Amino acid sequence: MFTPHGVVETPVFMPVGTLATVKGVPQDTLEELGVQILLNNTYHLYLRPGVEVVRSLGGVQRFMAWDKPILTDSGGFQVFSLSELRKVTEDGVAFRSHLDGSSHMFTPESSMAAQIGLGADIIMAFDECTEHPAERGRARASMEMTLRWLKRSRDYFEAHKEEVPWFGGGASRLKAPDLSSARYATAEAVPFQNGDLSGGNAGPSTASAKAAASARDDKRCGIDGPTLSQKQGKDGTPTSIPSVEPAHTQALFGIVQGGMYPDLRRESAERTVEIDLPGYAIGGLSVGEPRPMTYEMVDVAMPYLPDNKPRYLMGVGTPEEIVHYLAQGVDMMDCVLPTRAARHGLLYTSEGKLSIKNAQFARDDGPIDPKCGCKVCGRYSRAYLRHLYSSNELLAQTLNTVHNLAYYLDTMRRVRQAILLGEFSTLLSGVRPPHLSAP
Amino acid sequence: MFTPHGVVETPVFMPVGTLATVKGVPQDTLEELGVQILLNNTYHLYLRPGVEVVRSLGGVQRFMAWDKPILTDSGGFQVFSLSELRKVTEDGVAFRSHLDGSSHMFTPESSMAAQIGLGADIIMAFDECTEHPAERGRARASMEMTLRWLKRSRDYFEAHKEEVPWFGGGASRLKAPDLSSARYATAEAVPFQNGDLSGGNAGPSTASAKAAASARDDKRCGIDGPTLSQKQGKDGTPTSIPSVEPAHTQALFGIVQGGMYPDLRRESAERTVEIDLPGYAIGGLSVGEPRPMTYEMVDVAMPYLPDNKPRYLMGVGTPEEIVHYLAQGVDMMDCVLPTRAARHGLLYTSEGKLSIKNAQFARDDGPIDPKCGCKVCGRYSRAYLRHLYSSNELLAQTLNTVHNLAYYLDTMRRVRQAILLGEFSTLLSGVRPPHLSAP
Repeated sequence: MFTPHGVVETPVFMPVGTLATVKGVPQDTLEELGVQILLNNTYHLYLRPGVEVVRSLGGVQRFMAWDKPILTDSGGFQVFSLSELRKVTEDGVAFRSHLDGSSHMFTPESSMAAQIGLGADIIMAFDECTEHPAERGRARASMEMTLRWLKRSRDYFEAHKEEVPWFGGGASRLKAPDLSSARYATAEAVPFQNGDLSGGNAGPSTASAKAAASARDDKRCGIDGPTLSQKQGKDGTPTSIPSVEPAHTQALFGIVQGGMYPDLRRESAERTVEIDLPGYAIGGLSVGEPRPMTYEMVDVAMPYLPDNKPRYLMGVGTPEEIVHYLAQGVDMMDCVLPTRAARHGLLYTSEGKLSIKNAQFARDDGPIDPKCGCKVCGRYSRAYLRHLYSSNELLAQTLNTVHNLAYYLDTMRRVRQAILLGEFSTLLSGVRPPHLSAP
Repeated sequence: MFTPHGVVETPVFMPVGTLATVKGVPQDTLEELGVQILLNNTYHLYLRPGVEVVRSLGGVQRFMAWDKPILTDSGGFQVFSLSELRKVTEDGVAFRSHLDGSSHMFTPESSMAAQIGLGADIIMAFDECTEHPAERGRARASMEMTLRWLKRSRDYFEAHKEEVPWFGGGASRLKAPDLSSARYATAEAVPFQNGDLSGGNAGPSTASAKAAASARDDKRCGIDGPTLSQKQGKDGTPTSIPSVEPAHTQALFGIVQGGMYPDLRRESAERTVEIDLPGYAIGGLSVGEPRPMTYEMVDVAMPYLPDNKPRYLMGVGTPEEIVHYLAQGVDMMDCVLPTRAARHGLLYTSEGKLSIKNAQFARDDGPIDPKCGCKVCGRYSRAYLRHLYSSNELLAQTLNTVHNLAYYLDTMRRVRQAILLGEFSTLLSGVRPPHLSAP
């Protein structure tokens, strides 16, 4: 996946950096972990520090000193889950800030304006996240409104996409993207220069200069080239990769809704795809429904999303679930689970989940996971991490988060390697079916 | 200064790592900052996770995965400043835990036992921190008791010093100390192998193995060799450095008290030095007295402390004060100021102190301090740091602390370089006298 701020190898896990920070983890550590793309929340950044502050500083990449791709959500899920006194109309959603109770309104147009101002590489159409449970009539009405909002989102975006702070390369003073931290990259197979990828980040190469010069005339969307799923044949071997041209604007993705009704999910997918966009997401899941129902909704929607464009499953899941979704063809995922669980002392390991606060670890001088190669497992003992957590020390949150992110990112890396080697089905057979795992 | 876990160049600033962690800063970042030695608090580690846990895991260096020197205080200051219902007798101090109100007792013997169990490289005699203000009679009585407690501390230490967890090298599985992060080190001038410094940490070298083999017969204290102040002539040029032998046990330092009475301070210094110890500290300052009084107490005590042994001024101060004390010959300092201030958004810069939460920084894309070379100033803007702080994000505390520590450590590094170049008086003349600074 080629974005204005660099290449993303799919399938990819996006750590959640709500307020333009992955809680407790410095950006250089995220680079060391091999994070390719972050998610930021529009709702939170809109409230603090405000879109105009981020825009005036060159966009969220420069604001947070992260010169790799970023995705922002639309704010639709946060007004659904966080804000008080939400009122939904055809126009949009009126809500009160969870911080100070102040009144605000998100519409498809204002969500697009906010996301263009923030300047993430990938932005999401403004949707209504249908609550669960919802009557069939309610789910259909909600889905229909999300489709109308998608068209309004697309229209506003097309009319204003050149307002992104780094459009044409003038606003950004970021360095050209550096691929060196993509440790498992197969970049040598890609037939173009690094500078080609960054219309918005003028590098020293001729190709980059040319790209910057032509940026203002280029009206194409921000995601170019095939996704990894297109790059492989049925047997999993890579096929030839077509050459691509650089992206100069953001990429707008549409979102499938439809509640927990398979036929509505299918219809939502079909009608969303009728609007030609560079990528599509499945939203409205993990809202309290039983997990088998989540699987079913993903199952029914996936075949209707084009496999030559990124397919993004929003807001899931556990490590086992993630591998399951990858097998269904999902290219992108985000989830607060690894970072939030870490802050509660829950750590993922090759042997299952572990609660570091347990007394059994008080004198345990082994690492969190002997099979993990992360820098936390390479240096610190369970006994020390338990002490930090029990003593409510800040460092507990940082180190636990680094480990859990490493676990998720390593899982994705193994899957990418298995796909490239045609061994994904072998890898899958070693994974417990997620419906047999503990919830 | 040569310790069982490596060389310390003096003068040195010791960041405070109360609970075996410098709040919010991973150990590899401390290494990158060039931290040479950390301070841990005996009182806190005694309560959590408990001395026996740390001892069974090989001592505090191995516990916190920090294979460089550590100093522990005696707990005397913390029972003075933190605990409720403190009761001081000739035997020691009965106190209640600030955590759960449980009853405990520190005596010179139990403080030594705790510090030997924790296994820091340098440990402190158990003293009474005299409150301020104190009547003359009270200050004398307190000073006399501290002297009696010093003899008890020394006697217990001498009888039990081989119980340190890493004695003889058997208990520790730490790697041999790595001097590579001592960026300004003059290690090439030191006529012995790296492995020689670590009797407690068996490295692969023959010298180290020999040291470990002879360790059980070696009764010398843990600090060997000259301090930097001895290594230079009156003009500040380095003189020859005598060869030293490795240290196999901890070093016990005595503490000067005497309240705010110059003659008592002098007497305390003289009588403390009568007990032959590898280093001496000045305690009982920064307890609420006006700053000029602090200076005076340091002034009167310093001439009575031998300048061929480390002189440690406990618990001070601001960057300006620190340079002032260095001019008086102080070799070691520790202070919570840079780390605690950072967590409150107060940052030290070459232009003075800065409160990052101020609205003026909301759109400021410059670094905290343009003259600072730390990795925070190299990457993040004031606007971003203000956003993190205002949003109560964990990363604010980490990044602010890294910057403030860099500021302190750079100050010490500049002073060490100036001393080596014979330019310390020039450096001093550019520093504002601390009594003219804002309090």
